[in-house]
Amino acid sequence: MPRVFSGIQPTGDPHIGNYFGAMKNYVKLGDQLGKNSIYCVVDLHAPTNPSAYDPKFLAQRTFEMAVANMAAGLDPEKVIFFVQSHVPEHTQLAWLFTVITPVGELERMTQYKDKAGKLESTPAGLLMYPVLQAADILLYKADTVPVGEDQVQHIELTREIARKFNHAFGDMFPEPKAVLEKDALRIPGLDGSGKMSKSKGEATTIGILEPLDSIWQKLRVAPTDPARVRRTDPGDPDKCLIGDYHKLFSDLPTLETVYTGCRTAGIGCVDCKKLLLGSMTQELAPIQERAAALRADPDFVRDALVQGAKEARAIAQPVFEEAREKVGFLKL
Amino acid sequence: MPRVFSGIQPTGDPHIGNYFGAMKNYVKLGDQLGKNSIYCVVDLHAPTNPSAYDPKFLAQRTFEMAVANMAAGLDPEKVIFFVQSHVPEHTQLAWLFTVITPVGELERMTQYKDKAGKLESTPAGLLMYPVLQAADILLYKADTVPVGEDQVQHIELTREIARKFNHAFGDMFPEPKAVLEKDALRIPGLDGSGKMSKSKGEATTIGILEPLDSIWQKLRVAPTDPARVRRTDPGDPDKCLIGDYHKLFSDLPTLETVYTGCRTAGIGCVDCKKLLLGSMTQELAPIQERAAALRADPDFVRDALVQGAKEARAIAQPVFEEAREKVGFLKL
Repeated sequence: MPRVFSGIQPTGDPHIGNYFGAMKNYVKLGDQLGKNSIYCVVDLHAPTNPSAYDPKFLAQRTFEMAVANMAAGLDPEKVIFFVQSHVPEHTQLAWLFTVITPVGELERMTQYKDKAGKLESTPAGLLMYPVLQAADILLYKADTVPVGEDQVQHIELTREIARKFNHAFGDMFPEPKAVLEKDALRIPGLDGSGKMSKSKGEATTIGILEPLDSIWQKLRVAPTDPARVRRTDPGDPDKCLIGDYHKLFSDLPTLETVYTGCRTAGIGCVDCKKLLLGSMTQELAPIQERAAALRADPDFVRDALVQGAKEARAIAQPVFEEAREKVGFLKL
Repeated sequence: MPRVFSGIQPTGDPHIGNYFGAMKNYVKLGDQLGKNSIYCVVDLHAPTNPSAYDPKFLAQRTFEMAVANMAAGLDPEKVIFFVQSHVPEHTQLAWLFTVITPVGELERMTQYKDKAGKLESTPAGLLMYPVLQAADILLYKADTVPVGEDQVQHIELTREIARKFNHAFGDMFPEPKAVLEKDALRIPGLDGSGKMSKSKGEATTIGILEPLDSIWQKLRVAPTDPARVRRTDPGDPDKCLIGDYHKLFSDLPTLETVYTGCRTAGIGCVDCKKLLLGSMTQELAPIQERAAALRADPDFVRDALVQGAKEARAIAQPVFEEAREKVGFLKL
């Protein structure tokens, strides 16, 4: 049975790109793989990104990210779900990997070059990020890592680190494979350009925990197929942002209404957006209700994370111990 | 009362340069400061130096370094004495410092440039070395760090990391001061040039646990004042390696015999070396006897290190917890 590891950034408020690209997939994999699907809110990575990180909000965003995933259907009793900083072996193993990873390899990482290029002074955390990431994955001997395209190069480095460690100290780590979260790449932001991303501003994203009236305000002003200048102009849902979202949220009868209505100018864009809001409400309202219930019972969430960290450590401790012995440290 | 932290490289066999430069000082500081003197065999640093590190020998060298220090008089009941890899908070705190340390600062370190320049591929461990070192020191809120001259720049970086952390997250770390181990700089190697160092080869060092007949073989062929070509030529002990060692090992009456004898050609170089061997035997034989007794009772040494790690963690855990909270991680 494959073992999946996935790191979840503690951004606090996941958007529908995260939801369809990753979160729904976690739930599905959890159903298939049970405790062989390991999901980790990677809070230790957060401070490496100075522009998105604020010590005042990190704990809250970590908690909210746990709430969001559990509300979206991730069952902590079924999978292993925990917070990275609660398992000390992540940074411990990362140090053993730091020792065998060439500086040159890290400097070549595209994401590092992109992010470092925008900063006046580059924190070492940005350079070492993929080493901690390799430790996150290999600490659980995971062989399968669902990631966005921007992380593929890091997983390739993880494979190299595994190979190098195995060669230097003796076989112990698998070489994990990246599995592309393809849908995530296709979900456009509200500005209509590219992939939905928090870094482009809140106005371009739809949060899965965002109040539905706030979502409506965003949909109301969202661009549609520019061919529909007048209400009577026919349009093409395949060239329309709202059409893209319908494909994610709407059932077949609604999709038929939208496709036919748009192409024949039978419905206007506002009608079409109202139909979308209806579909979104059907998908998101139950999630938002569950999130409200979880927030009202924070001890339940905390207990789940405590239990998750215990389950994670039950795997991580012996793996780190094995690595520690291979590198030759004195055992007491 | 000052709190001293010192890291001891797990080279296994300390030489008389280490002994007079550092180890004797640790014993003295321990008498003065008790549990405020913290000594750590820094085994996590060992693999950053690919030329000196071998996984097959690390545990043994770590153990031997503990034996050597205890044999030289370091009392684990009096001070805190432990092995770095037994306290997980070292790498955990190091990651928090990685996040705030600029890559540029690390690249500017003289030792990094020296060592990286000699390698075809530079491991990231070499770059990150001073960050782990800063964590070693600040994890105990130590304010005083006895070091060789080559480490002064790293302690300056430790001060900068402390300042930066305090500024970003709130005051918690002192800015530790480097205290130069001056004697260590003056003890020449057996080749007569520079400072005694293991990196120049075993033939140039005298190990404190080295069998006395092996030491004698080295002394026998060691160079003396070149002015003494014939037995009847007078010499100058201040221009002689053997004279330098006499100053470290011999008591006043022996020193008088040596000075007068050399300057008047009253004694030959071989006589002078035999006198030195006598003085060395007086200093080293009891240490070597204690080392033999400790090796014969490895459980005693292990128990001492277990207890040391416990005492170290009793300080390290709350300090890391304080840092962890300041950086904003979710507490369970």
